[in-house]
Amino acid sequence: MDEAGFITALRHLATAREARGLADDCAVSGKMVVTHDMMVAGVHFREDADPADVAWKLIAANLSDLAAKGAQPKGVLLGYMLGGAAWDDRFVAGLRDALQGMNVALWGGDTVRGSTHGQRSFGLTAIGEAVHLPVPSRSGARPGDTLWVTGEIGAAMLGFEGNSAASIARFNRPVPRTTEGLALAPLVTAMMDVSDGLLLDAQRMAEASGVCIAIDSPAVPMPAAMPPDRRGDAMRWGDDYELLLTLPAGISPPVEATRIGTVEARGAAPLLVDGAIPDNGKALGYQH
Amino acid sequence: MDEAGFITALRHLATAREARGLADDCAVSGKMVVTHDMMVAGVHFREDADPADVAWKLIAANLSDLAAKGAQPKGVLLGYMLGGAAWDDRFVAGLRDALQGMNVALWGGDTVRGSTHGQRSFGLTAIGEAVHLPVPSRSGARPGDTLWVTGEIGAAMLGFEGNSAASIARFNRPVPRTTEGLALAPLVTAMMDVSDGLLLDAQRMAEASGVCIAIDSPAVPMPAAMPPDRRGDAMRWGDDYELLLTLPAGISPPVEATRIGTVEARGAAPLLVDGAIPDNGKALGYQH
Repeated sequence: MDEAGFITALRHLATAREARGLADDCAVSGKMVVTHDMMVAGVHFREDADPADVAWKLIAANLSDLAAKGAQPKGVLLGYMLGGAAWDDRFVAGLRDALQGMNVALWGGDTVRGSTHGQRSFGLTAIGEAVHLPVPSRSGARPGDTLWVTGEIGAAMLGFEGNSAASIARFNRPVPRTTEGLALAPLVTAMMDVSDGLLLDAQRMAEASGVCIAIDSPAVPMPAAMPPDRRGDAMRWGDDYELLLTLPAGISPPVEATRIGTVEARGAAPLLVDGAIPDNGKALGYQH
Repeated sequence: MDEAGFITALRHLATAREARGLADDCAVSGKMVVTHDMMVAGVHFREDADPADVAWKLIAANLSDLAAKGAQPKGVLLGYMLGGAAWDDRFVAGLRDALQGMNVALWGGDTVRGSTHGQRSFGLTAIGEAVHLPVPSRSGARPGDTLWVTGEIGAAMLGFEGNSAASIARFNRPVPRTTEGLALAPLVTAMMDVSDGLLLDAQRMAEASGVCIAIDSPAVPMPAAMPPDRRGDAMRWGDDYELLLTLPAGISPPVEATRIGTVEARGAAPLLVDGAIPDNGKALGYQH
């Protein structure tokens, strides 16, 4: 059984309505929205990362999932593997910044010692309350809808590459689109966050909705510093934590967002970029 | 900053009512009860353990925390680090057993790859709904209350040591006291699960309640196979997942439980065993 087989096996177990077939960002029970992410040293963050930024990102990534459901963050539970005095001290500093900066409470969790060898890992569970029912899903996009994205795509890629202080900050300390998600939730037909790359996440939305999503790549908003020859890479890069959403034709988003495409009936492919099926030899995003 | 310092720092951040000062088994928000535990290979389970038992115990340990709050389990979110086809396959088998056996739904989670070296770890978040408000805590024990425990203490120790098939099953596949917790919640003054050792957990309850708990050690129920000279060790051994609770004088538990002591005003120590302060040279339980 490989990773895909494992996830298929989990899907067979996750038959409750709240699980949404494990095909959404969060579990949803009434107005309660819950998500859990793990981060592993050397896989999800660099071993030499500032622990304060690791703490920030652990919270931000989960709150971004809540934002995509239009949920107000309430509390987080932290699974923490101790890493030595200096590391732990910086982690707490970043945790404090994140809880204050993102207005969410630390509710609990678990602190464990790791064994002496090997990688460290962390888990975070975030719990929020949806402002609108039904809670948006990935699966509601319909032919004729318009496709939108908040903010800019590619800032995290530039930041990872050390491009500028502003983009490094965007990479290290992404800010979840909580306010935007709350305002958009009553209007969208589908919504998710762009954490693994615009193209990959758009394809996931198209698969969940049984439609084709057609992206107009010149319309994708990017930082002014983005070199023209890197725009294709930026659409396949993760960590931007923007919101990707579809709206019925004629409805404008009540927050700053850019129209980047349309939803069509499913034809030959779930995803088209400038009218063509994207190059399959290249990953559409970051799969982990 | 050492581990105690880290937890103190977290307590300073966890000021929300729901966090209960990080001194309880769970976070509580209205009737919603949430808990999160991590398990690390080589620390919380043996590297050669059957992965199916690891899955079972991950769920059972968290549902035991919910039981101590009188909460009906609703859903779990799993943080899973892939471990290769054979391991993952056995883990899924144990997960299936656990979800069915404990009547709880898989709501979601996250699957990650670890790096090639080093330990694997897992996280589990369990969400339940309390049947009684206020939700029981560790801090409500009052002088004059009686002290009770469900089931038997020490079966897990015998199982770890390979004592008998029955005790090995108790160690590998503990069953959370969900039914008992639901029935007890409206009556208890304090309740918690015994996961780290009877003496350690009783001392924690006494500390949280600002009282002294006096245990009558010959009254502590143990398996018939327990050698008399191991009774002291058994009271310091974890993994039993029984419920420890206090009741007002004159109230009997509505489920099978054994009276093992009384609650007194805080004197010289938070814990007395047969009238004496326990030997400080020996750990009271398993601290991790």
